[in-house]
Amino acid sequence: MTQQLVAGIDIGGTNTTFGLVDARGTILFKETIATEHFPIPEDLVAVVCEHIKKAFEPFAGKYELKGIGIGAPNGNFFKGTIEFAPNLKWKGIVPLAKLFSERLDCKALLTNDANAAAIGEMIFGGARGMKDFIFITLGTGLGSGIVVNGEMVYGHDSFAGELGHVIMFPDGRQCGCGRKGCLETYCSATGIKRTYSDLLIGQHEKVNVGMGADARYIYNKAVGGDKTAIEAFNYTGDILGLALANSVAYTSPEAIFLFGGLALSGDFIFKPTIESFERNLLPIYKNKIKILPSKLPENDAAILGAASLIWKDDGH
Amino acid sequence: MTQQLVAGIDIGGTNTTFGLVDARGTILFKETIATEHFPIPEDLVAVVCEHIKKAFEPFAGKYELKGIGIGAPNGNFFKGTIEFAPNLKWKGIVPLAKLFSERLDCKALLTNDANAAAIGEMIFGGARGMKDFIFITLGTGLGSGIVVNGEMVYGHDSFAGELGHVIMFPDGRQCGCGRKGCLETYCSATGIKRTYSDLLIGQHEKVNVGMGADARYIYNKAVGGDKTAIEAFNYTGDILGLALANSVAYTSPEAIFLFGGLALSGDFIFKPTIESFERNLLPIYKNKIKILPSKLPENDAAILGAASLIWKDDGH
Repeated sequence: MTQQLVAGIDIGGTNTTFGLVDARGTILFKETIATEHFPIPEDLVAVVCEHIKKAFEPFAGKYELKGIGIGAPNGNFFKGTIEFAPNLKWKGIVPLAKLFSERLDCKALLTNDANAAAIGEMIFGGARGMKDFIFITLGTGLGSGIVVNGEMVYGHDSFAGELGHVIMFPDGRQCGCGRKGCLETYCSATGIKRTYSDLLIGQHEKVNVGMGADARYIYNKAVGGDKTAIEAFNYTGDILGLALANSVAYTSPEAIFLFGGLALSGDFIFKPTIESFERNLLPIYKNKIKILPSKLPENDAAILGAASLIWKDDGH
Repeated sequence: MTQQLVAGIDIGGTNTTFGLVDARGTILFKETIATEHFPIPEDLVAVVCEHIKKAFEPFAGKYELKGIGIGAPNGNFFKGTIEFAPNLKWKGIVPLAKLFSERLDCKALLTNDANAAAIGEMIFGGARGMKDFIFITLGTGLGSGIVVNGEMVYGHDSFAGELGHVIMFPDGRQCGCGRKGCLETYCSATGIKRTYSDLLIGQHEKVNVGMGADARYIYNKAVGGDKTAIEAFNYTGDILGLALANSVAYTSPEAIFLFGGLALSGDFIFKPTIESFERNLLPIYKNKIKILPSKLPENDAAILGAASLIWKDDGH
């Protein structure tokens, strides 16, 4: 019997990474090109498809290309389009799934990057066998994917699962979305950096948390025993735990997975998050929901997530 | 062909109401008994089943009993049980669906009252044809049912959809659940009464909002032009609108339905709620989600909701 491979494509503001993934989640080929070099989406699609075709050649006898899964900012699963993505040069609505599908003559599915990673967690990661979970990416912002009864929650317009923009404090920090107090202004790499700066200012310390400073910088400080860095993690975890406790009141998941730079900070982030989470949970939910680090490998999560859209579609 | 009827049973702390409902949502028979008179659940089940059997007799030739739908506090859909319901005299876990099913020899399904009403809205009310919506009951507390892709969100433990216990303000009003700042301490009949009292106290007015005062009392005051009553509605709507805007970030519904006493206050509650809702929505969601009054008749919603569990199960 012919075996199957899936092309997983992750389109980001800076880079587009793509690869060929088998049913077990093994990446047989992987490549990255600069998204910014392609002001016209059709040109990027053409180049990516050429690379995929070429990469597929050695496998052609044994495998067939089952489909193309795409993770992209502002991706609309129902329409297969990218819609007004602020961090891409492509304007308006781009029918990306159709462009790929026509070029490679197979099925193409597209969703936003956080949803793709959530499905990746379900197919290849720590959520295997789970029917109800929430997946959180703590990157520059806070992305999320919600799975209910084994299915991704897309909502009426395919834009469900924007937990980064739940308003935690109505008069809180200014968010890039134009509103104030969104969760991601506190709980993200950007958020913890802001907290760390605020704490230093509060101590009248000279603030030197420049553009180069990131969650890793604050993590390293914390490892070195820096009390301000540890306090920044505690503050971040305290708010994240409250937000996750509130999330449970919506979908009552079996587990919540944390992914991304900040989630790699181990106990510094997990301990205060779990403490706040349990403290803020409604009694009926206490001590039964796991908060776990993602089991997706940091560097391959995007491709695996994108590819899992197709494997999932098959009831894999 | 034999037509079918469903028994709908709503078990509340004070009363148990039950009836026979046809596929169109017509209630052919309805009766209420006092829950409190039955310290042992088996006794209540026996009496209710006797009444249903008797009421069914005139229809026996033409109809068959398709099933029993039950709405009850702390109802577990997966197990068909009521679990530690604080406002019922029955202690521990009561296998209520099994008790009814055995007595009437047909299928029985059970869920909590808010979920049952949400399914009622989908089968017989304003959510017909909708796949993604949120249903909110504004009663003594705030109950909710979330529907995603045409299916009720039960979550891992069947206790999903407790939006009344989302923490809006970490140091806010004391809630009966033991925590502080829960949505229902602001947005419910009890919540608006508390707000109205607080406003009067703030104005150094003699507070005479006694136990008899309810949402209806404040509504009547507002109709009469009482500025404090109108301010209480505005305050309630402001918080409810924010909470609903946050809810959209979870499941991106097509509509949100408001049910219950407070929802019958028309523009007094809907206007400030919708204003706050739109103001607090993430831009991608603005101006596309409807906030609507429930179309279920206030007095029959509980029976219709309970019965709809069975009709829904059939893919009705």
